[in-house]
Order: sequence, then structure tokens, then C-alpha cells
Amino acid sequence: MLPILITGKSGRMGQAVIEATEINPGTTIGATHDAGENLDDAVKASKCIIDFTVHTFSTSLIETALRHKVPVVMGTTGHTEAELQTIHAAAKIIPIVHAPNFSVGVNTLFWLTSRAARILKQDAFDIEVTEMHHRHKIDAPSGTARRLLDILNEETGTSYKEDVAHGRFGNIGPRKAKEIGMHTLRGGDVVGDHTVMFAADGERVELTHKASSRMTFASGAVRAALWLIDKPAGLYDMQDVLELK
Amino acid sequence: MLPILITGKSGRMGQAVIEATEINPGTTIGATHDAGENLDDAVKASKCIIDFTVHTFSTSLIETALRHKVPVVMGTTGHTEAELQTIHAAAKIIPIVHAPNFSVGVNTLFWLTSRAARILKQDAFDIEVTEMHHRHKIDAPSGTARRLLDILNEETGTSYKEDVAHGRFGNIGPRKAKEIGMHTLRGGDVVGDHTVMFAADGERVELTHKASSRMTFASGAVRAALWLIDKPAGLYDMQDVLELK
Amino acid sequence: MLPILITGKSGRMGQAVIEATEINPGTTIGATHDAGENLDDAVKASKCIIDFTVHTFSTSLIETALRHKVPVVMGTTGHTEAELQTIHAAAKIIPIVHAPNFSVGVNTLFWLTSRAARILKQDAFDIEVTEMHHRHKIDAPSGTARRLLDILNEETGTSYKEDVAHGRFGNIGPRKAKEIGMHTLRGGDVVGDHTVMFAADGERVELTHKASSRMTFASGAVRAALWLIDKPAGLYDMQDVLELK
Amino acid sequence: MLPILITGKSGRMGQAVIEATEINPGTTIGATHDAGENLDDAVKASKCIIDFTVHTFSTSLIETALRHKVPVVMGTTGHTEAELQTIHAAAKIIPIVHAPNFSVGVNTLFWLTSRAARILKQDAFDIEVTEMHHRHKIDAPSGTARRLLDILNEETGTSYKEDVAHGRFGNIGPRKAKEIGMHTLRGGDVVGDHTVMFAADGERVELTHKASSRMTFASGAVRAALWLIDKPAGLYDMQDVLELK
Repeated sequence: MLPILITGKSGRMGQAVIEATEINPGTTIGATHDAGENLDDAVKASKCIIDFTVHTFSTSLIETALRHKVPVVMGTTGHTEAELQTIHAAAKIIPIVHAPNFSVGVNTLFWLTSRAARILKQDAFDIEVTEMHHRHKIDAPSGTARRLLDILNEETGTSYKEDVAHGRFGNIGPRKAKEIGMHTLRGGDVVGDHTVMFAADGERVELTHKASSRMTFASGAVRAALWLIDKPAGLYDMQDVLELK
Repeated sequence: MLPILITGKSGRMGQAVIEATEINPGTTIGATHDAGENLDDAVKASKCIIDFTVHTFSTSLIETALRHKVPVVMGTTGHTEAELQTIHAAAKIIPIVHAPNFSVGVNTLFWLTSRAARILKQDAFDIEVTEMHHRHKIDAPSGTARRLLDILNEETGTSYKEDVAHGRFGNIGPRKAKEIGMHTLRGGDVVGDHTVMFAADGERVELTHKASSRMTFASGAVRAALWLIDKPAGLYDMQDVLELK
Repeated sequence: MLPILITGKSGRMGQAVIEATEINPGTTIGATHDAGENLDDAVKASKCIIDFTVHTFSTSLIETALRHKVPVVMGTTGHTEAELQTIHAAAKIIPIVHAPNFSVGVNTLFWLTSRAARILKQDAFDIEVTEMHHRHKIDAPSGTARRLLDILNEETGTSYKEDVAHGRFGNIGPRKAKEIGMHTLRGGDVVGDHTVMFAADGERVELTHKASSRMTFASGAVRAALWLIDKPAGLYDMQDVLELK
Repeated sequence: MLPILITGKSGRMGQAVIEATEINPGTTIGATHDAGENLDDAVKASKCIIDFTVHTFSTSLIETALRHKVPVVMGTTGHTEAELQTIHAAAKIIPIVHAPNFSVGVNTLFWLTSRAARILKQDAFDIEVTEMHHRHKIDAPSGTARRLLDILNEETGTSYKEDVAHGRFGNIGPRKAKEIGMHTLRGGDVVGDHTVMFAADGERVELTHKASSRMTFASGAVRAALWLIDKPAGLYDMQDVLELK
């Protein structure tokens, strides 16, 4: 059983990581930590750290981890250049996973989408993407949808600016083969649904991800911790953890 | 077993109506007819007529039906005022069903959408509509989706011009409560999918119709024929047949 | 603004009702209550009570509500006959809503399913029901699915024992017209999805409900409270609140 | 433009292949053929043959193809051992694709399912498979679903006999981690829908294929023809064509 230190223990992500650590048969809680508490003692009680706090905490966290040679799974984002430097330098001595999204499912969707687009060529298969999020989300499409479009653009040789249609209205004429439809639904408290659809004459292939809680991200981080502990020093991301490269 | 005359027997809809008549345990083929063939003999051999041909044929068809007092199910559209007059006048003597869409399912979706919108009030439930059709369709959204929006506008006191969002892109801000999202997907050879979604905190209700062949329309017309034969003279539509008024 | 008393304030449903009361523009928190606290003071501070606690608390709750003539929305279940007697007797003096499921969406699905089954007759439309719940659920199908089957049995003149197929395997032969397929999926932490499908030649109609949190039930209870306050004494259920009778 | 010979030109698959050949910008109709017509002339007019007829025709077809060194795409099944010998022997001299299912989408679903099962490990992700076909289909589950289960069994180390649950009913207890749910829906005239679902705490990944016409199979065969023409002699299947090995 791998003892894990969870930082930001009172935060929403911290709480979720504590729950995910307890559920996973391979991990246990080594220590938990909140701002103001003794970090050295907490790190000493664990063999891996999972951190979803704020970027201003990263420097002291990384320095303590280095002192005790404990690997770090970091979901914190928004670092300054100086803070990123600290992380990169530390990754020469200890193994670190740093990723903006720890959902196993979303990372799998990215990978499957890229492979599907190679097989289901755009001269026969029309590509449409839909996403739905809660009513409070202020940007369209979502960051995850935007990443799906990047992948599709790369695989099909299309351009985000030229070929992506964000909705359709009026006398649009027949669909262009290179077009990618992007449809952004908003409503209720939906955590996040994404679908990539490939539609040809006589058949459709659809790849869908539905997130229902932040436990998604917490259990992805625990999985990353279990993967990380026997790795050599280095800076990894979630595609490494899932061996999707 | 009700013997039916199917006009336009070589056309695509005529063929579908022949098949639907043969399948339905309550109906049989009384006669079939194509342009240039004897219409009187065909009408005499049947107790109901199903017609999906062209509006220029309607006057002679109606006159022959009147002569033999045979009810008519008419899916033909695009009539001139004079032709419509003929139909209306005949409906004082024989029963006639005249409708633009004989799909039982689509008419049911219309009715269910109106009732659902009354129950799932817009202060809690956000409304989003999606439709998908084949890549050759040149207008957006579809006529059926447009009718769904009319129903939703009426039930919610919203306006097609002011409150319907045809796609979303950019910094859109939080969703407006009165907004209705309309998402038009195009691809492959999809005959027609429509979904109306009501999304609140913690739950979603979705009403979906998927058409896969014109048999939809043919079997709706056969159902209309069976309903029509014991009705008094009058002009009916598909909502009457389905008793959805 | 209607001041509401929420009992069982530390419980999971109590917490959800507190949140739903704060969100609803027509309601405010009059008081909250937990076992051991003064109930009289709490009832006096409110114009309606919402109770999701345990049946052993109902007698004292109802007696206090009667004393102050405050209406009650009760989601508590599992009452003894004697406790039910107390509730029924009180309902001659104050208005009470008592229901096992306060989700607006699920109650709407029940109603829409009954109406759809009347229109989409079983001689043309095959009926299939699917439900999905989390991996810990020990019975199959769910209570909600069971209620959907009751509704479908009643509308189609079929029998739960004779006509419902719980999965299919082997050389099953062509589908029987009166059969209703019931498919129980289990996996992950799915709160509850239910779909009723009507499939004919050429078209399908699907009615779906997806629950994502217990806020569903909490906001249904708040809606019941707002409906209840100007009603005469009587015992009501959620179909009354939604005016679905 | 590749001129193709389509055999069985009056059959339903022959008609579909003719249409698919006309639609594809890289192919044209070299010749068409029906039983009783001169095969040599037809083969001479083309640079590839697509055959969906009957196994008793295969020997003379293959012999003629050999004489003119024309590659063959064969969707015909049910061959005797002797007929298979003829095909295998010919494949030493000319390139031949022989496959039971030419749908690009279904073959892609097979491949994606295998890869997804490797990433979304069964200790966290519960696997459920659903399929829907028309009411006349007499076996459950479908051959395609059966193939999906084979793939999933192989990737997860589970057994078709021990671990696949064909429906659920009664007091089933909590879901077993190694269980794979298989749900066979029947209704209407559905050509074929298949979904593989991976459900974990907080997220689901779903892979879906929907077939809507035999054009699916026809255009897969045309794609196979275009792939085949510059290949060396050999016996290939659809996984080769799609480069999914």
C-alpha cells in the first residue's frame, strides 16, 4: 500500500483525492496537509505527494519533496516561469507528473479520436463534435472540445479558423467535406459531456466521454501516483502515465 | 381487411405505401394506379385511397373519389388555391385526411414536447434542441426542428428571433434562462434525428425521434386510412388521426 | 419569499434542501433543525416544512406542524401503519405533500411514458426499457424502472410476469409483439439513467431521464412547498404538485 | 479512375456496390454482370472485381480473374473447403481481399474497443455492451456483438461463459468487477446499433457504431478495391485494408 500525502486537504479537489486514495486498494493516506501546517512531517510520512492547490505553494512543496526524495503528482496550473523552472529542475532528481487534466477517460478520448480520424478518412466520414456543460460556463467551446478540435485539425489537415463551423443557420448549402461541425450545448449543472461523431453513408461512429464528478480527476491522480513511484527522475504528463504515446 | 387504392404506384412513396399496406394486418391492396391508367376502375376496387403524387393530379382524383364516395388520405402538398378549394368542398361530402407529415413518431414528438414544456418550466429547465440530417440538406434548421421551436416558443412565451441561439462561440457569458439552444448537425446520409432536451440542476429529460426510412410516412398514412373509414365527412389532419388534440 | 423549515439539517438530503431553498428565488430559510433541538421555535419561524429524515420522527413533527398550522412536504418513507394514520389524520387539518420521489423529471417521465404508450400502439411500436445505475445497486431493475413497466403494462394490457423480458440470450426467434424488453445496466457511480424506447418500421421515439445529483429531489421538494402553501387541507402527492393527473 | 466489375448486378448488394462505385471519385463502373452473361468480356473491361454473390459462383469467377490477372474483392461467404482452396491458390498469383464484413465503421469499432480496453482497466472501469437490431433477428446477441465480447474477453482476461451477463434480474447483489454486461435490444427495423461502455467513478467512455444501410458494406468494398490494386499477390482481410493490424 502506497502512503500518499494529500495537500490542500480542505479544498474540493483535496477532499476528492482523499476519497480516491481511500478507495484505491493500492494506496493509503500517509498524511494530509493544509496551509500553515508542518510540511516536512507530512512529506516524511508518505512515499508520494498529490497536489491540487495553488501555484504559489509549488516552490516550497517541490523543495520539501526534493529534500526527502519523494515523487510528486501535480495538478496545480497557472505557474509563473520561475515556478516552472523550479519544477523542471527538480524533475532531474525526482520523478514528477504534471498535467492539466488527470481524467483517464478524457485522455483516452483524445487518443481514440486521433486514431479514429486516421482510419475514418474525411472524404467519406463527416466529422461533428458536440459538448455540453452547465449553464454557468462562460466560454464556448470548452477547453476539452478545443483540444479535440486541435487533434482533428492535425489529423485531417484542416484549420480551426477556416474549417470549424460553430453552429449552422439559414441557407447553408450542402455540407463541405472538410468542414468540422462544433456544437456547444449549455444547461443545468452538467459536469461535461463530449462526443466526436464520424458520419458516412450508411454508418456512424461516435466516441463519447461523460464526466459526472471531480472524482474523475482525483482517481486519475491516484493512478498517476501508483505509476510514478518506480520511475526514474523526469517530467511526465498524463499521456505518459496512460502509456498513450 | 380494408382494400386500399395506392396511386403513384411506381413512385418511391407509392412503393413504400404498397409495402406498408401489405404489412398491416388490417389492410390489403385493393388496386394500384399510375398516370395514364383507368382511375374509375381502381377506385371502385377499394374502400380508401392513399395518395402521395403531385398536386396537379388532385382535382381528378378527388372528383373520382366523390363519385364513388371513397375516403381519401392525401400526403400530396403544394396545391394551388383552386385545388385546395376542391379538396375543402369535397370534405363536406366524404372524409379526407390531408397532412404534410404522416409520421406517427414526429407528430407524437410534437405533442410530447408541448406537454413537457408546460411541466418542466423554463425557470428551472434549460431547453436545447439538436437535429441531424444528411450532408446534402441545404437549410438549417430542418422544418421539423423549426416546428419544435414554434411549439417551445409558444409554450414558454419566448420568441424565435430573440431567444433562439443557433450555435455558440466565444465569450458567451452565463446562459440566459429564456434562451433556447438550436444545434444543427449535418453528416452522412442521416434521414433525420431530433432531440429536445430539458436540463435542470441534477437532472435532464430528453425526447428523441429518429427516422430511418420513408416507411415511417407510409405506415402513418395506412394508419390514417384505418382511422378514416368510419368517420363522418370532414377535413382532418394527422393530429386528429392520432387523437392528439 | 416563503420561509421554510428544513429538518435533518446535517443529513445529506437536508443539506441539499438547504441549498435548493437558497437558490430558489421564491423561498428562503426560515429555520433548520436537527435531532435534539427545539422544534417549536423552528416551526414558528417558518411557513412550510420540508422533511427528509426518518419515519420515527414523523409523529412529533406532524403534531408540532398541526399546533402551528404549518403545511408539510414529506419525503420520508418507511412509516408504520400508526405513523401513516397520524399523517392522514393531520391532512384533514393542514395540507401535506407525501411522495417517495420528488424529482420533477422522473414524475414527468412517468406521465409522458403513459401518454406515449397510448399513441404509439404496440402493434406497430416495439417497447424496450433501459436503465443504468452505479455498481453498488443490488436489485434489478430499479424501482423507477419497475414503475415505468407498471405504467407500460397498464397502457398496453400486458403483464409484468408474462411479457417483460429481462435480457435476451440464444436462439430467441422473432420478437413477440407484446414483449417489453427490460435492460439493466450497472457500472461506475451512475446516479440513474432511464430510457423508454418505442421502435417501429422506419422510426424510433425515445424518452430519457438522467439524474446527476440529489439536488433533483431537493428542488422538487422546494417546488412542492411553493405549490402547497395556498392549498386547502388534504393529502397530496407529486403528481398533484405537477398537475399531472 | 479505377474501372470496377460488379457481379450480381441485380441483387441488393450488387445494386448498392454500383451506387457506391459511382459515388466514389476514384472509381467508375467498368462492367456489371449477372448469371448467364459473358464473364470474360466483363472482366476484360475492368481493373478490379467486387463480388457479393453466392459461393457456388466463386470458382468460375476466380478462374476468370486469374486468366486476366485482375484483383478481386470478395464479400461472398459460406464457401466449401474446395472453394476456399481455389481462393487461397489464386491469392498466390493475384491480390484478393476476402472478408465477412466490409463496414469501415464496424472494423474501426473492433479496433478502438481493443485499444480502449487496454487503457481503461477493468479494476476501475465496468464494461457494458448494448446492441439493437430489428424485430426479425432470431439470435442474441448479434455476431458483431459476439465479436466485441471476444475482443473484450481477450483484452481483460475474462471468459465468455463465466463473465458475460446477458441481462440482469432480481437480487443480483453488487456488480462483480470482472463482469461484462451484454444487453440485446430488439425492435422496429433497426439495421444495427452497437455500443461498448466503460463506466468508472465520475466518468464514462462510450464507443458506438450505428449502421443505417447496406451502403456501409458497399462503400467498404469499394475502399478495399482502391487499396488492393497496387498490392502484391496475397490474401487480405478488412483489417489489412484499414491498416489496423
